[in-house]
Amino acid sequence: MIKVLDVSGLRSDRMDALDYAIIKSGADAYVLYASSDEADMRYLSGFKTSDPFVYFKKPNHRSIIIVSQMEHARAVSESHAAVMTKAQAGLVEILKTEKDPWKATAKMITNQVQGRILVPPKFPLALARALQDSVDLIVDTTCLESMRAVKNRAQIAAIKNVQRVTESALDLGISLIRRSTERKGILFAGGKPLTSERVKFAINNHLMDHGCIAKDSIVSCGEDTAIPHCLGSGALKAHQPIVLDIFPKDERSGYFSDMTRTVSKGKPGAKVLEMYAVVCDAQTLAIRQVREGVSGAEVHQTVVDFFRDHGYDNTTTGFVHSLGHGIGLEVHEPPALGPSGKGLVAGNVITIEPGLYYPGVGGVRLEDIGAVTKKGFSRFTKFPRDLVV
Amino acid sequence: MIKVLDVSGLRSDRMDALDYAIIKSGADAYVLYASSDEADMRYLSGFKTSDPFVYFKKPNHRSIIIVSQMEHARAVSESHAAVMTKAQAGLVEILKTEKDPWKATAKMITNQVQGRILVPPKFPLALARALQDSVDLIVDTTCLESMRAVKNRAQIAAIKNVQRVTESALDLGISLIRRSTERKGILFAGGKPLTSERVKFAINNHLMDHGCIAKDSIVSCGEDTAIPHCLGSGALKAHQPIVLDIFPKDERSGYFSDMTRTVSKGKPGAKVLEMYAVVCDAQTLAIRQVREGVSGAEVHQTVVDFFRDHGYDNTTTGFVHSLGHGIGLEVHEPPALGPSGKGLVAGNVITIEPGLYYPGVGGVRLEDIGAVTKKGFSRFTKFPRDLVV
Repeated sequence: MIKVLDVSGLRSDRMDALDYAIIKSGADAYVLYASSDEADMRYLSGFKTSDPFVYFKKPNHRSIIIVSQMEHARAVSESHAAVMTKAQAGLVEILKTEKDPWKATAKMITNQVQGRILVPPKFPLALARALQDSVDLIVDTTCLESMRAVKNRAQIAAIKNVQRVTESALDLGISLIRRSTERKGILFAGGKPLTSERVKFAINNHLMDHGCIAKDSIVSCGEDTAIPHCLGSGALKAHQPIVLDIFPKDERSGYFSDMTRTVSKGKPGAKVLEMYAVVCDAQTLAIRQVREGVSGAEVHQTVVDFFRDHGYDNTTTGFVHSLGHGIGLEVHEPPALGPSGKGLVAGNVITIEPGLYYPGVGGVRLEDIGAVTKKGFSRFTKFPRDLVV
Repeated sequence: MIKVLDVSGLRSDRMDALDYAIIKSGADAYVLYASSDEADMRYLSGFKTSDPFVYFKKPNHRSIIIVSQMEHARAVSESHAAVMTKAQAGLVEILKTEKDPWKATAKMITNQVQGRILVPPKFPLALARALQDSVDLIVDTTCLESMRAVKNRAQIAAIKNVQRVTESALDLGISLIRRSTERKGILFAGGKPLTSERVKFAINNHLMDHGCIAKDSIVSCGEDTAIPHCLGSGALKAHQPIVLDIFPKDERSGYFSDMTRTVSKGKPGAKVLEMYAVVCDAQTLAIRQVREGVSGAEVHQTVVDFFRDHGYDNTTTGFVHSLGHGIGLEVHEPPALGPSGKGLVAGNVITIEPGLYYPGVGGVRLEDIGAVTKKGFSRFTKFPRDLVV
C-alpha cells in the first residue's frame, strides 16, 4: 500500500493502517464529517477549521477533504489531503432540489463514495440516517482509535514541547506561592491577597505567550481540593494543600499535555502530609509497573490495592478517579488507565495521576506524563514533587 | 407543563419546549451523550466538563445528568439538572458482563429510559447502534436547534457582555496600529516591527484578563487579507488593508461574540478604498433589511445583488462567503444568513459580515453583531467603522 504524503509530520506515519482497516472490513472508503475541533478529523485531515467538513479516504488513494470555497486556499496550503470545494463536489446543484442539509450533505458524499463506508463512532446519527438508503455504514470502533493511541516521533515531540511550556508555566505559578507572605493564614503578594485567580492568570498568560491555550486550569486550595475538578477561587491559604492542575493545548500542533502538582505554603496538617507521602509512593509504584503488555486495569488496580493497604478507600472518598489516561489531540483519550484499561502498547502517551480526596481534610494529586516503551515508561515530566514551598 | 428550575439564567426559559417536542414526536424522553464542549450539551445540562456524559429529560420531570463519581459534587453545585453518578445508574454492575463501552453506556441509558427516544442530529452513531435493539431513536433536527437559536434576556446579556470585552480588545489592537510609525512601508512600535503576532497577543491577553478565550484570532495584512480565514503573520505594512477578526468565548457563560474591522495605517490604494466603501454600504443595507419574518437567504441575496450592481462578483473571488451567521454557544450556529437561510425570528442573535476578496488586491470585511427584533435589528456592536487610522 502506498505511503501518503505527510506534510505536517504530526499525522501518523502508519496512515496505511487506515487503508488496511477499510480493506479488512470489506469497505470502500472511510468517511468523516466533523469540524476539526473533533480530534479524529484534526488527526486525519491535518486541517483546522471550526465548521464541519467532509473527509474521505479510499484505499490506495490520497485523502480528500471537501471544504467551502472561502477555505479552499487555506486548505490547499495547510492540509496534507487533496482539497475539493463543496461546489466542485456538486453541492450547489444538489441544493437546488434537496433542501434538507443532512440529506444534501449525504448526496454530496455519495457523489464521491459508494458501497460500504467505514465511519468513526461519533459519526452524526442524522447524517448516517440520510446516508443509509444508498450506502452501508460500518462503525469503526478500533482502527482509528488504535492509530491515534500510538504516537509517532513527531507527535511525541509535539507533546514534549507543550509539556516543556506547561512546566515553565507551573513553575511560575508555584514561585508566586513560594514567594508570597502569610498574614493571618492568608497568602499575600504585592500587598494584595494571592488568589487562585491571580495564579491562574500568571500561568495562562505564560502559556498563551508560548502559543498554548489552557482551559479550566485548576488552582484550588484547602476544602476545595477535596473536589478533584473544582477550579478554585479566592485567596490561597497557608498550611493548606494547593492543587495546581493544568492541561494546555498547543494551538499550532493541536496536542495537549497535562500535569498536576500539590504544594503547601508552610507545612500542612499531619493527615495531608501522610496522604501526600502515600500518593508519591503510589505514583512511583505505578510508573515502575508501566511497560508494553501490561494492562491499564492492572496498573490502576495496583494503586487501588496499595492505597487500601495504607488505609485509603476508593469509594465516594479516597481514590475516586482513574489512575490516568491517554493524551494527544484530546486531553483524555485511549488508552484507559482504569478498571476497563486494556494492554498498553509502546508509543502510547499516558498520564499517571493518583490522588486522594477527603472532605474536611482536603485533596492531594500528582500527575506526570510520558510514553509507554517496550521495557517501561519514558517520563516527559521533569518537575520536582516538593510539597512544602 | 412545569417550569424547570433555572439556576444559571443562561438556559432557555422556554425549556418546556423540549417537553413539547418529546410529546409531539410521540417520544418518552430526550437523550444526549456528549461532553459539554458540544453546545447542545452545555445548553441543556448547564454543566461544563470535557468528558462525555449522559443527559436525559422526560416530560414533566426534571432533567437528569449521569456523571462520574469524581464530578458528582461539582455537578450538584453547578448544574441545574438533577445529578446521578454512573455507579448509581448501574454502570459498575453492567461492566461486569458488558465489556463494550458503547453497549455498556447504552444499557445504562436504557436502565433510565425506554420506548421512543428523541436525540439531537450529532448523536454518536456507535451509541445509536448499541441502543437500537431496545429503543426507538428519533432524530430531532428542529426543536433543540430552534430553542438555541432564540436567545432569552440572560443569554443576550451574556453575548453583549463578551461583545463589550471584544470591542475593548479590538480597540487595543487598532490603537497599536494607529500609534505605530512607518519605516520603508513597515509599521514599527517600540523600536521593533509591529507584527500580526504582537497585535494578536495584545488582543488575546486583554480578552484573557477579562475571562474570555480567543482561538484563531485573525490579524492579517496585505495579500493575506484576500484569504478570508488566513490568520496572518509577520510585520504589518502601511497603506495596506489589515483585517482584524476576533470571536472570543466567555469561559464562564460559554457564549461567543464575533466582530471584524478592516483598517489601514495611512491611505490604501484606490481599489481597496472603493471596496471598503461598497462593503460599508452593503453592511448598512443588510442591517436595514433584517427583522423578524425576513429570510436569511433574502438578506444574503440582497448583498450579492448589491455587490454585482457595483461590479463585484461572488464566484471564487469577490463575496466568497455567507453574509453572516447565528451565534451563541457556538461561533457559527443557526440561523444561516446565506443561500439556505430561512425566516429570521425575534431573539435570533446574528452577525452581518459582508466582505470582498481579490488576490493581488486584498480583502475587506466588516462584521457587526446584534439581535433580530420584530421590527429590525438591535445592534450590539458600538465600534466605529473607520478604515484609515
